[in-house]
Amino acid sequence: MATAIIIGVGPDQGLGAQLCKRFAAEGLNILVAGRTKPALDAVVADIVAAGGRATAVVADATVEADIVALFDKAGADLELAIYNAGNNTPGKIIDMETGYFEQSWRVVCFGGFLFGREAVRRLVPKGFGSLLFTGASASLRGRSGYGAFNSSKAGLRTLAQAMAKEYAADGIHVGHVVVDGPIGGEKIMKRFPDAAGREERLISIAGIVDGFVFLHKQPRRAWSFELDVRTSQESW
Amino acid sequence: MATAIIIGVGPDQGLGAQLCKRFAAEGLNILVAGRTKPALDAVVADIVAAGGRATAVVADATVEADIVALFDKAGADLELAIYNAGNNTPGKIIDMETGYFEQSWRVVCFGGFLFGREAVRRLVPKGFGSLLFTGASASLRGRSGYGAFNSSKAGLRTLAQAMAKEYAADGIHVGHVVVDGPIGGEKIMKRFPDAAGREERLISIAGIVDGFVFLHKQPRRAWSFELDVRTSQESW
Amino acid sequence: MATAIIIGVGPDQGLGAQLCKRFAAEGLNILVAGRTKPALDAVVADIVAAGGRATAVVADATVEADIVALFDKAGADLELAIYNAGNNTPGKIIDMETGYFEQSWRVVCFGGFLFGREAVRRLVPKGFGSLLFTGASASLRGRSGYGAFNSSKAGLRTLAQAMAKEYAADGIHVGHVVVDGPIGGEKIMKRFPDAAGREERLISIAGIVDGFVFLHKQPRRAWSFELDVRTSQESW
Amino acid sequence: MATAIIIGVGPDQGLGAQLCKRFAAEGLNILVAGRTKPALDAVVADIVAAGGRATAVVADATVEADIVALFDKAGADLELAIYNAGNNTPGKIIDMETGYFEQSWRVVCFGGFLFGREAVRRLVPKGFGSLLFTGASASLRGRSGYGAFNSSKAGLRTLAQAMAKEYAADGIHVGHVVVDGPIGGEKIMKRFPDAAGREERLISIAGIVDGFVFLHKQPRRAWSFELDVRTSQESW
Repeated sequence: MATAIIIGVGPDQGLGAQLCKRFAAEGLNILVAGRTKPALDAVVADIVAAGGRATAVVADATVEADIVALFDKAGADLELAIYNAGNNTPGKIIDMETGYFEQSWRVVCFGGFLFGREAVRRLVPKGFGSLLFTGASASLRGRSGYGAFNSSKAGLRTLAQAMAKEYAADGIHVGHVVVDGPIGGEKIMKRFPDAAGREERLISIAGIVDGFVFLHKQPRRAWSFELDVRTSQESW
Repeated sequence: MATAIIIGVGPDQGLGAQLCKRFAAEGLNILVAGRTKPALDAVVADIVAAGGRATAVVADATVEADIVALFDKAGADLELAIYNAGNNTPGKIIDMETGYFEQSWRVVCFGGFLFGREAVRRLVPKGFGSLLFTGASASLRGRSGYGAFNSSKAGLRTLAQAMAKEYAADGIHVGHVVVDGPIGGEKIMKRFPDAAGREERLISIAGIVDGFVFLHKQPRRAWSFELDVRTSQESW
Repeated sequence: MATAIIIGVGPDQGLGAQLCKRFAAEGLNILVAGRTKPALDAVVADIVAAGGRATAVVADATVEADIVALFDKAGADLELAIYNAGNNTPGKIIDMETGYFEQSWRVVCFGGFLFGREAVRRLVPKGFGSLLFTGASASLRGRSGYGAFNSSKAGLRTLAQAMAKEYAADGIHVGHVVVDGPIGGEKIMKRFPDAAGREERLISIAGIVDGFVFLHKQPRRAWSFELDVRTSQESW
Repeated sequence: MATAIIIGVGPDQGLGAQLCKRFAAEGLNILVAGRTKPALDAVVADIVAAGGRATAVVADATVEADIVALFDKAGADLELAIYNAGNNTPGKIIDMETGYFEQSWRVVCFGGFLFGREAVRRLVPKGFGSLLFTGASASLRGRSGYGAFNSSKAGLRTLAQAMAKEYAADGIHVGHVVVDGPIGGEKIMKRFPDAAGREERLISIAGIVDGFVFLHKQPRRAWSFELDVRTSQESW
């Protein structure tokens, strides 16, 4: 059964969880990967209850052994791998601890390298499959107060672009979805109790997921590398 | 009945004609616009034969009165407008006639302004609708031998980006599809008899059309401005 | 005597006039070109009074015959050509007159084509020389309220980039200076009487001129195409 | 005496050493920093012999304590800091060792963070000074075979851009020089014995150094963030 690995899965109303549910509904077996077992289990339970197939895999995106084991678990049916790990890491450079800058890179960019490398190691021999990354407006330019996150996200995007070119002729579709603005998910709803009232300014998670599905289904004579997604209310 | 205007329609196996047929199949009434009546009529006949609805409108994309009349014909049901006019205009600047440079801009960029302006004049009062432009790799950078086309396409893309920002809050979704490479359509098949043998290197028209459909259907909390499309064999 | 053509010359405290004076001080004979004879004459008088050499040439940047005559006047000593014509053309697309959009392109981009073409026609046979363009932040992206100017400036920049690639091997250095923000010149001083008080936010004309001089003097084994210039107070 | 720290100094005919010599000739006291003591000593000896002032400081750009000590040594006279560390790290992602990818980032990007942070910690209280980074064409886009280097360099460039915006209002000028192509230095001359014969295709080190000097001397009402440098023979 065609299998997808999706890493960076957290709360149900987050992008990772909704990517899992949608691709399960599209008929793929999902390896639901992240750091928090109960969150993963909840996603798996919902998928199974809806008649789909999924397995929770606890994995730290920055730990090579975890990522190798995750891809080993997927086996020969792997057709889709999505790297959705990495949180925003704001802060001014002048005040920044060394470990904070490094950790930003480790989760956002280094984890993307480990994940991407293991994906192409499995997909290139098959000659097809998709490798998709979650980006942000931070991926495209530096901004005051976001140097660490900007640097890491730009590093990830440029890595993804290099991989897109490096493995296209092998039949591997590498894509990058630029999420430009706050997502209407659980994190933001909890932090800003008034968020529901300004929902028009929060990107629809289902809409972002549509973008990933669109990229995954593209025929190899019409691949997109990049897709930006924002609300009609966003300034850019 | 929801109506689309699609301008830049030529031979059946070209992007314009296939955009018309697909959006007709999606249930829209299509105004099939271009300069060559028989080509337009053929597209309309096919749409009608398939149970859809379409009307041929002879219009020159660079003539203001033609564009105003075209949009007047669409009336209040307009929901989608696609600007697909404009051919490549190669040539070195040192040898270039003034009229050639101007004509490149007139078809590629000025026509896009006329079309885009008339579209927002009709769509803004309704508060929704899509305005989509066909771009090219030429839209993104200058290249030796393509200065006129690069200049015109970059002018169109930047205009589209300004319009995307200017009318988003009014509910109008402006998008730009970057077609990166040769299209597997009639023009190229006729010019290069061996093209069929290297189909893998020619972008799938159906795949490009998928991109336009995807953009048009996005919810306003998850709009994309730009989508690049190329084959797995393209160097970029 | 090494000769420069500088077009887009207006008031003394403007970029065009200051470019003329600096390159005259650097030892070049200057053809001071623009539409307003008295302004050109004033610049020439100052240059001559300072011991330099200059001639006023009334020319409309959008008129082919004017531009050809201007380059004919420079003759075989031409070594530098600077295109500094073109004003900002704000306005929403929905309200814009067709002629306004066209005129924006004609001055900003089409004039740049005429000027650039005549420059390479004279410089390529010599095997050296610089062709420099004045850009703006508008050259780099579309923005609400500036669609016409953005489109024209992006068209000019991309043309310049194509020319840079097309004529580099012939020894012609094409460059583009992105002026990012308001210039501390006469226009702004007159419009905003308080401008002097916020001089720190207005780009130093002398500093911009430094950039043009720097580009012109670069050896051919170390050419820059683009230079951005802004004040330390600018948001970007 | 106004002091500069320049890190990433190697052989005499390399960019780092030539930056040291030029800024010493411009009257600055130079801290010549790198990993190889004899190379640093040779540069210092030449500077001193020419009447300048310089000190060799062995420092590993990736070691926090080294960088802190380096800036401590510069003391209150620091006015310029240049990060020139980092070599190309080619290789396909599919074959790449984890440590190789990490080390590429550590030297190219993480070292730039440490260096930049220490620089702004010293310069912001003074209210002026320049922080300049050496970039590459790799900084701008991903390319097959260069994923690690592309990712690291893009991470550095975006960090530099964020810092440029973050510290401009504090009077700190952050700049980034994009070296687009092979440099005509010792490394390449040794690897390719025929390099001298194709000198026209190798970027002039003196020309790159000119760019750094130009950026450092810009007045704060006319700062550039980025400068690209290439030969007239380069394809781009």
